[in-house]
Amino acid sequence: MNKQYLKVIDHTLLKHDATDKDIENCCKEAVEFGFYSVIVQPYYTGLASKLLKGSDVLCGSVIGFPFGAETTDVKRFQAERALDNKAEELDMVICMPSFKNKNYADTENDIRQIVKFGVPVKVIIETSLLCEEEIITASKICINGGAAFVKTSTGYFGGGATAENIKLIKKTVGDKIKIKAAGGIRTIEDLITMLRCGADRIGTSGGVKIAQGLISLKEY
Amino acid sequence: MNKQYLKVIDHTLLKHDATDKDIENCCKEAVEFGFYSVIVQPYYTGLASKLLKGSDVLCGSVIGFPFGAETTDVKRFQAERALDNKAEELDMVICMPSFKNKNYADTENDIRQIVKFGVPVKVIIETSLLCEEEIITASKICINGGAAFVKTSTGYFGGGATAENIKLIKKTVGDKIKIKAAGGIRTIEDLITMLRCGADRIGTSGGVKIAQGLISLKEY
Repeated sequence: MNKQYLKVIDHTLLKHDATDKDIENCCKEAVEFGFYSVIVQPYYTGLASKLLKGSDVLCGSVIGFPFGAETTDVKRFQAERALDNKAEELDMVICMPSFKNKNYADTENDIRQIVKFGVPVKVIIETSLLCEEEIITASKICINGGAAFVKTSTGYFGGGATAENIKLIKKTVGDKIKIKAAGGIRTIEDLITMLRCGADRIGTSGGVKIAQGLISLKEY
Repeated sequence: MNKQYLKVIDHTLLKHDATDKDIENCCKEAVEFGFYSVIVQPYYTGLASKLLKGSDVLCGSVIGFPFGAETTDVKRFQAERALDNKAEELDMVICMPSFKNKNYADTENDIRQIVKFGVPVKVIIETSLLCEEEIITASKICINGGAAFVKTSTGYFGGGATAENIKLIKKTVGDKIKIKAAGGIRTIEDLITMLRCGADRIGTSGGVKIAQGLISLKEY
């Protein structure tokens, strides 16, 4: 029953010097190992969704990534285009400037404007830039904005997901919103730790190694 | 005549947890030290251009930053909004996916679509992700796309500007396009080295320290 662990993985390929061939490999791996989704840059969303068509692996794209410092109308336009390209989930970065200026109504509205498109939205709050109080506030804003998930990190700034932060978010949100742990998750042990602390989904570029770890565990 | 060194600086504040107050300080510094421009995230472009109005410091914004992995229509929308917010120069990231797939016509078109808006466009080729041959090819694409500058780096991926890369770009482009060195330029010595190798503009978040270095040089 190890496969349950693979079905929580968003198989993530965001390095911008990736080529069509890298995207093809990524999609093949996702189908082979039974990951939940593939997450790619906007440029590659059309290609990835085409490659995944007919499989049970979803295609996800990113919005306002990695800074979240776009204006809301730009994020809306990005979301429209991602949906044109058949993205089925969107990982957006919280509007960090409005959040840091404590304009929480604007931060919440920025999320709501993307949620309106009707696909599950994961809001990356970039925990490495936040203190505990801010993590709690940001998590509540994600709930109020109608997001499907609070997500910890882009993986591009400082630390990724930690057990402590996942626990803190879980304690804050309960069952009102799901949690995606991302950033620095490299092994099956990391993954299981995150799930035990309250994560529902795991974002990682290391899914294949994790899967191979699972397979070798089964062999012994 | 040291002030000539300060007038080549794009005073750059792109960290996304910056607040209104940080932007205000940044604009004040740029006016005080006589930098060429201030470069901020899209979210802050309206604020920065308002604060700089009436000064001789320009306001710049970023497009497709830092990945360049947006689709061209998204970059166009970003550029329109930046111009609505009175950006006077645009630093855009080359379409790295099309470039890495060797779809050079698409890469050039992506630039041309932004150049069409009529303000100077600096195209970041992210030298740390390119081999020498690719740096030469990318520089030529910038010329053909009508860009005002080839720019070395976002500062977010691997190394920034190096003397070798500036020399290579200069040798490639001659006087057909200007060169902006960015990434890791922290001292007046770095700045002068880049200018001597062929750079016309310097992007740095360390402009104030460089300026203060200049001032103390003058004192001795």
